[in-house]
Amino acid sequence: MKKRILVLNGPNLNLLGKREPKIYGTTTLEEVNKQMLQIAEEKNLELTFFQSNHEGELIDHIHDAMGNFDGIIMNPGAFTHYSYAISDAIAAVQIPLIEVHISNIYQRETFRQHSVIAPVSIGQISGLGVFGYIAAIYFFADFYK
Amino acid sequence: MKKRILVLNGPNLNLLGKREPKIYGTTTLEEVNKQMLQIAEEKNLELTFFQSNHEGELIDHIHDAMGNFDGIIMNPGAFTHYSYAISDAIAAVQIPLIEVHISNIYQRETFRQHSVIAPVSIGQISGLGVFGYIAAIYFFADFYK
Amino acid sequence: MKKRILVLNGPNLNLLGKREPKIYGTTTLEEVNKQMLQIAEEKNLELTFFQSNHEGELIDHIHDAMGNFDGIIMNPGAFTHYSYAISDAIAAVQIPLIEVHISNIYQRETFRQHSVIAPVSIGQISGLGVFGYIAAIYFFADFYK
Amino acid sequence: MKKRILVLNGPNLNLLGKREPKIYGTTTLEEVNKQMLQIAEEKNLELTFFQSNHEGELIDHIHDAMGNFDGIIMNPGAFTHYSYAISDAIAAVQIPLIEVHISNIYQRETFRQHSVIAPVSIGQISGLGVFGYIAAIYFFADFYK
Amino acid sequence: MKKRILVLNGPNLNLLGKREPKIYGTTTLEEVNKQMLQIAEEKNLELTFFQSNHEGELIDHIHDAMGNFDGIIMNPGAFTHYSYAISDAIAAVQIPLIEVHISNIYQRETFRQHSVIAPVSIGQISGLGVFGYIAAIYFFADFYK
Amino acid sequence: MKKRILVLNGPNLNLLGKREPKIYGTTTLEEVNKQMLQIAEEKNLELTFFQSNHEGELIDHIHDAMGNFDGIIMNPGAFTHYSYAISDAIAAVQIPLIEVHISNIYQRETFRQHSVIAPVSIGQISGLGVFGYIAAIYFFADFYK
Amino acid sequence: MKKRILVLNGPNLNLLGKREPKIYGTTTLEEVNKQMLQIAEEKNLELTFFQSNHEGELIDHIHDAMGNFDGIIMNPGAFTHYSYAISDAIAAVQIPLIEVHISNIYQRETFRQHSVIAPVSIGQISGLGVFGYIAAIYFFADFYK
Amino acid sequence: MKKRILVLNGPNLNLLGKREPKIYGTTTLEEVNKQMLQIAEEKNLELTFFQSNHEGELIDHIHDAMGNFDGIIMNPGAFTHYSYAISDAIAAVQIPLIEVHISNIYQRETFRQHSVIAPVSIGQISGLGVFGYIAAIYFFADFYK
Amino acid sequence: MKKRILVLNGPNLNLLGKREPKIYGTTTLEEVNKQMLQIAEEKNLELTFFQSNHEGELIDHIHDAMGNFDGIIMNPGAFTHYSYAISDAIAAVQIPLIEVHISNIYQRETFRQHSVIAPVSIGQISGLGVFGYIAAIYFFADFYK
Amino acid sequence: MKKRILVLNGPNLNLLGKREPKIYGTTTLEEVNKQMLQIAEEKNLELTFFQSNHEGELIDHIHDAMGNFDGIIMNPGAFTHYSYAISDAIAAVQIPLIEVHISNIYQRETFRQHSVIAPVSIGQISGLGVFGYIAAIYFFADFYK
Amino acid sequence: MKKRILVLNGPNLNLLGKREPKIYGTTTLEEVNKQMLQIAEEKNLELTFFQSNHEGELIDHIHDAMGNFDGIIMNPGAFTHYSYAISDAIAAVQIPLIEVHISNIYQRETFRQHSVIAPVSIGQISGLGVFGYIAAIYFFADFYK
Amino acid sequence: MKKRILVLNGPNLNLLGKREPKIYGTTTLEEVNKQMLQIAEEKNLELTFFQSNHEGELIDHIHDAMGNFDGIIMNPGAFTHYSYAISDAIAAVQIPLIEVHISNIYQRETFRQHSVIAPVSIGQISGLGVFGYIAAIYFFADFYK
Repeated sequence: MKKRILVLNGPNLNLLGKREPKIYGTTTLEEVNKQMLQIAEEKNLELTFFQSNHEGELIDHIHDAMGNFDGIIMNPGAFTHYSYAISDAIAAVQIPLIEVHISNIYQRETFRQHSVIAPVSIGQISGLGVFGYIAAIYFFADFYK
Repeated sequence: MKKRILVLNGPNLNLLGKREPKIYGTTTLEEVNKQMLQIAEEKNLELTFFQSNHEGELIDHIHDAMGNFDGIIMNPGAFTHYSYAISDAIAAVQIPLIEVHISNIYQRETFRQHSVIAPVSIGQISGLGVFGYIAAIYFFADFYK
Repeated sequence: MKKRILVLNGPNLNLLGKREPKIYGTTTLEEVNKQMLQIAEEKNLELTFFQSNHEGELIDHIHDAMGNFDGIIMNPGAFTHYSYAISDAIAAVQIPLIEVHISNIYQRETFRQHSVIAPVSIGQISGLGVFGYIAAIYFFADFYK
Repeated sequence: MKKRILVLNGPNLNLLGKREPKIYGTTTLEEVNKQMLQIAEEKNLELTFFQSNHEGELIDHIHDAMGNFDGIIMNPGAFTHYSYAISDAIAAVQIPLIEVHISNIYQRETFRQHSVIAPVSIGQISGLGVFGYIAAIYFFADFYK
Repeated sequence: MKKRILVLNGPNLNLLGKREPKIYGTTTLEEVNKQMLQIAEEKNLELTFFQSNHEGELIDHIHDAMGNFDGIIMNPGAFTHYSYAISDAIAAVQIPLIEVHISNIYQRETFRQHSVIAPVSIGQISGLGVFGYIAAIYFFADFYK
Repeated sequence: MKKRILVLNGPNLNLLGKREPKIYGTTTLEEVNKQMLQIAEEKNLELTFFQSNHEGELIDHIHDAMGNFDGIIMNPGAFTHYSYAISDAIAAVQIPLIEVHISNIYQRETFRQHSVIAPVSIGQISGLGVFGYIAAIYFFADFYK
Repeated sequence: MKKRILVLNGPNLNLLGKREPKIYGTTTLEEVNKQMLQIAEEKNLELTFFQSNHEGELIDHIHDAMGNFDGIIMNPGAFTHYSYAISDAIAAVQIPLIEVHISNIYQRETFRQHSVIAPVSIGQISGLGVFGYIAAIYFFADFYK
Repeated sequence: MKKRILVLNGPNLNLLGKREPKIYGTTTLEEVNKQMLQIAEEKNLELTFFQSNHEGELIDHIHDAMGNFDGIIMNPGAFTHYSYAISDAIAAVQIPLIEVHISNIYQRETFRQHSVIAPVSIGQISGLGVFGYIAAIYFFADFYK
Repeated sequence: MKKRILVLNGPNLNLLGKREPKIYGTTTLEEVNKQMLQIAEEKNLELTFFQSNHEGELIDHIHDAMGNFDGIIMNPGAFTHYSYAISDAIAAVQIPLIEVHISNIYQRETFRQHSVIAPVSIGQISGLGVFGYIAAIYFFADFYK
Repeated sequence: MKKRILVLNGPNLNLLGKREPKIYGTTTLEEVNKQMLQIAEEKNLELTFFQSNHEGELIDHIHDAMGNFDGIIMNPGAFTHYSYAISDAIAAVQIPLIEVHISNIYQRETFRQHSVIAPVSIGQISGLGVFGYIAAIYFFADFYK
Repeated sequence: MKKRILVLNGPNLNLLGKREPKIYGTTTLEEVNKQMLQIAEEKNLELTFFQSNHEGELIDHIHDAMGNFDGIIMNPGAFTHYSYAISDAIAAVQIPLIEVHISNIYQRETFRQHSVIAPVSIGQISGLGVFGYIAAIYFFADFYK
Repeated sequence: MKKRILVLNGPNLNLLGKREPKIYGTTTLEEVNKQMLQIAEEKNLELTFFQSNHEGELIDHIHDAMGNFDGIIMNPGAFTHYSYAISDAIAAVQIPLIEVHISNIYQRETFRQHSVIAPVSIGQISGLGVFGYIAAIYFFADFYK
């Protein structure tokens, strides 16, 4: 049976590729999703995508993931730095989650260098551009027991 | 005339009793509500329940409470620690509010030991399990002038 | 052609003039908007108003402002102090934004003295009461190139 | 068999009701104790009272409570904020303890917002006036296993 | 009778428009003063100007303003960040004062983000360029009781 | 009628003049008391002396001072820096209290530079040697209304 | 030979008794000086007075005191909290100096609770009103060797 | 002549071996004292033991040690972390003192990692269990001149 | 031509798989290297391995990499947290470097949550076990320019 | 069979007894080693000595100790305060280690008061001079099970 | 044409050589100036000297240096640590400035270890006594392009 | 007899002039050394050069300098900021040492603004480019007694 992976993107990631290309590159979220789907097919994974600028909707989707997904790949955007509510939701549902950041958050403003999500995630990939999402798929496909 | 009390529960409390029983116990939110209703009946109080994972919806409900409720019992979940917007809403409507936490937040992670809600609430009950909600009802029924 | 200005108000500002008059005065948001419209007419500006207690909705409106507005006047309310998501949204759309606070936030609680919006705004007006909104209109009408 | 509860009050609580009524109310400690005894009778609990301004005497009484009491209700007064020796005593005897504060300590000076007792107590009730003591009795009578 | 307004400028503002145009623009202090006079005339205000690099002279002028001025517009320059002596002088004379900063001090070095003047001023305008001075005049002319 | 003044000395002050003369001088506490009595006689004040190394005993004496004394002169010794219980006692009894330190506490270790007593005392005299006690008597005799 | 004492008052103390009487009382600096002269005469001391709002002038006077004065009584006003230059001047001339504050600086804003002058003064008197100056004279007259 | 050593134990050490054996082991204080006496005999030292939960009593005993003891071995328990009064007592009597902690305080809570006693003691032994007391005896017997 | 990648492992990584398997797993460094070689072959990359417990040797190898390698994959071990010398070396040679951590350093001790290497690396992979090294190879093979 | 103990000394300890005798005494490292050997012989322990100024060499020796030593006595010198690499090495090999400091590190500069080694050592002896090494031998000989 | 260098000395440096010789040596400012003139002559530089205890006068002289000097050598004395106004003046005039301190400020009080001048100066010389001034002359004469 | 000076350069300084010329210039370490030798010859000093990326080797060389050198000129590179071991070595050998930094470390990252070497050096030269080394030679040649 296919492993099912939920791909969550937080606030402002709908603008990916359209704004601040020096920081985030020129690939749009749709293009990233396509690349992910291609690799997911090779690896026999099923992907579901969701993006929102609303903290509450992201929490609802994390809750609904219980029983329906085997893993979550999440770029929480700015919620990374203060949404203890999302952090609690992840801890509650206990689905393995990989935290992805396109830019190297440790080279940017101080507030971006603290993640409240990291303590409840399996791991974090930061600064590898959109390849971070791909690496997370490889992880779930080949390495996660 | 019956006193009317609004019972607000914040993010992730819909999962109460279903997840992390070591911290939060095995009683579900529905069961807690039933216990509250029973005592409310004895004490001649009218209870209204609302739970949401959305900060904005909680604020809207606090606003709408003006003129309609005599007291609020609120477990703000993780919003306790950063939602100055909810804190401002409580300050604005000036309805007496009791802050309830099921677990003893002062025995947990550092971030859980600071409440931005406490400065605008009448009082706080922490660590007494679901009895915290019951004690808050007793308070409104028998002690709040 | 008329300059188009978006006027955004954050959480609890719908209660303006109705609560805590010692801090915020007795003018309602509707009355503030009317005063702004009057001056906007003189100055040949087009104003659009939006208020919400939902962080996500404010972010969506900031995104939608791209291409439709020449400036934003925003009172982010309590989001001023922690919403990095709104801050990122402003940085992303690159529309000039004036941050307005009715009370002098530097005479109030410590948490109100730090703005996460200020680093992405053109400027900030604080403590001048509802005149802050008016001054921002004058700025966009007469001084902003 | 009756549950036996020790009620400990720390420094300056002998002055309760006699001084600073704006903060602590006008009920004296004797009157609080009477109210507690009344409810204890209904609930079939046995109460023992002790107040002291001496840290060492409070520690001695906590030690002597081993084998003699089923629960402790304690208002540690100012010792709340620095007596690691009392905190260690509570940890050592392992009798369930409820920490009570008459005023909302989170609305007062900074030093009052940190409790060194909370990490070794079951729970804390703060800001509910003398009802805090009553709620603690209800807790031991009806809810504590 | 005409309202009398004292316009104080602190250290280095005599160089305005002559140095660091990227931060402070190219308008000189003389030109700013002329713009202010023009609007003051329309609004029937009397303006008096004083600039100094000497903290003591600024304090002396604030003292001398008692009984002679109805309002002060002050750009304290770098004294904003450490001159408790100027801050005390303002508190002592109790003349309403608007603090003006040409650049957005919240987007610059950390030390510039703390004002010791703000707690004793009516309000602060920051980042609106020389328009900040103009807005302060409008405020005294039309909005201050 | 004679004003009655209580002179309290905290821990280790019984050793005054016998140890560490470089810091505390060579005058013993008994000799200081004699000097104080002499001046009290001239000024028609009645002095009562008490020294203790026990925090609880000092609190008890502050409580007992209510109704019996018109002023307190206290050198709280090391309790200056952490005894919130003594601080609360002083606040509770509301008898005017002058805090005296023999050495200049602002030239010594960091922990000695913070007093938890100062916020509840009328004033503080530090570094004037045993003259600090004398000055406090003059204050109560001639200047305190 | 008469001991010669220099009495220095820092910024804003020229307004003493004229402004903010709740904090500083209603006695003017001239009246304080008269009281001091009266006691100085009794005690056979020669007093010289100087007040300035200019840090540099105060430093110049401290320098000029070398060889001309046996002691300094100084109320540095707000310079207390940041003028390391005055502090260095005092250390350089090595004339014994008593620091006087009319109000209890430990009950006021945080910045007022740190003195950069205290480490170079003999001692500090705070909160005893204008009696602080008198006590300093007594000290130089009767106790300072 | 025999060297005389005072062995002081602070709060809660009377419970040693009876509670929390995972942290403090199962040896009681009486058994530790016996082991110490045995080695003291071999080494020709005279030991005197005192334990108290009262800070004041410990200070009194330190004072009384002057002239009567050649060294002190002290486990100050929780007073280690805040009793500046005990620290001052040790500094005053100037008897060499070894500070002993049974557990490794540097592997426990943050507050246990700071000792206010260490700056006035000769040295500190931490984490070697009850051997810490023995090592201190060896030190006084064989190495301390 | 084959891309040449240097794989650097810092202190204690020679013990990988032999110690603390709960944190670091049971795979040895040799086995990790084999896995890496296999994938490198598929992807046509040339790998060179070096491990050292000596900061200076790691710096020398980073220097020698100039002109000889197209990329570096480095697990700096504990040097991550304090070796500014290694950080400077990386900045100096300007070879793209991926920082790899086997465990999720953000779920461990505070000191492990700050990396002085991150500001000079392209990106960081943390908590994905030995897959972190593999992902870094994929990155250099398929995604880096 | 003889217990084997490794005695490690870190940077600058080769200069022991030759430099800064006020802090470290006049005994050389060779003399300390001789004293240790003498007691080791009595107690039937085998000692091996190693000193280095190179962090990497100390780590290598800690690694090589696995299987070859039953205990380590280490004075890490200045590495105490920042070498997380040594700390990790100790944690990895899991050989019981006693940390020894000749001087009382809690009476010296702030940076010397924090040990990154203490959390991975059994215990710490500080300030007892070279007796600290001897006490550690006694510990391994007689008390460590 | 001769390079023209302005030599500025801040507060208390007029006392150089006359006071606190242990810290500042016995050479007077006049003697330092003579030494500087001698070397300036050799190197064909023109020197102008100015010393003041007044912050405002130093700022005025920095302003007046524009167009008249090719470099500034400044010992800002205690203004080093808090005069952002001087710092802004230097940034404004953009004349290369070398900051000189006679004593090693990094071996003195904490407040002396932070310079607000350093971020706007070319470089800093500290602890080399009056040679610091000489080295600055050599720099401008031989090395500054 | 010729004064003998040891010139030590720490990690990454072997790359001087080859990398990051914007910060460090284009002069190589060899060229700097040549310039130094030229001036040393004029001044009759003997120079010995050593550069290493290994902390331990630098410590060894500092030790070996005892008796062989009259002064040390050291650019500790990144070790400036954390090598307490080098700092201890300098304190131990008590040879006068001048600390040199090519760039102005007070205009760079925060971590570069703290030197653990400065408290044990005579003085520090920062930001004067390679002239810093030359100035240190002049100092030893002409000014150091």
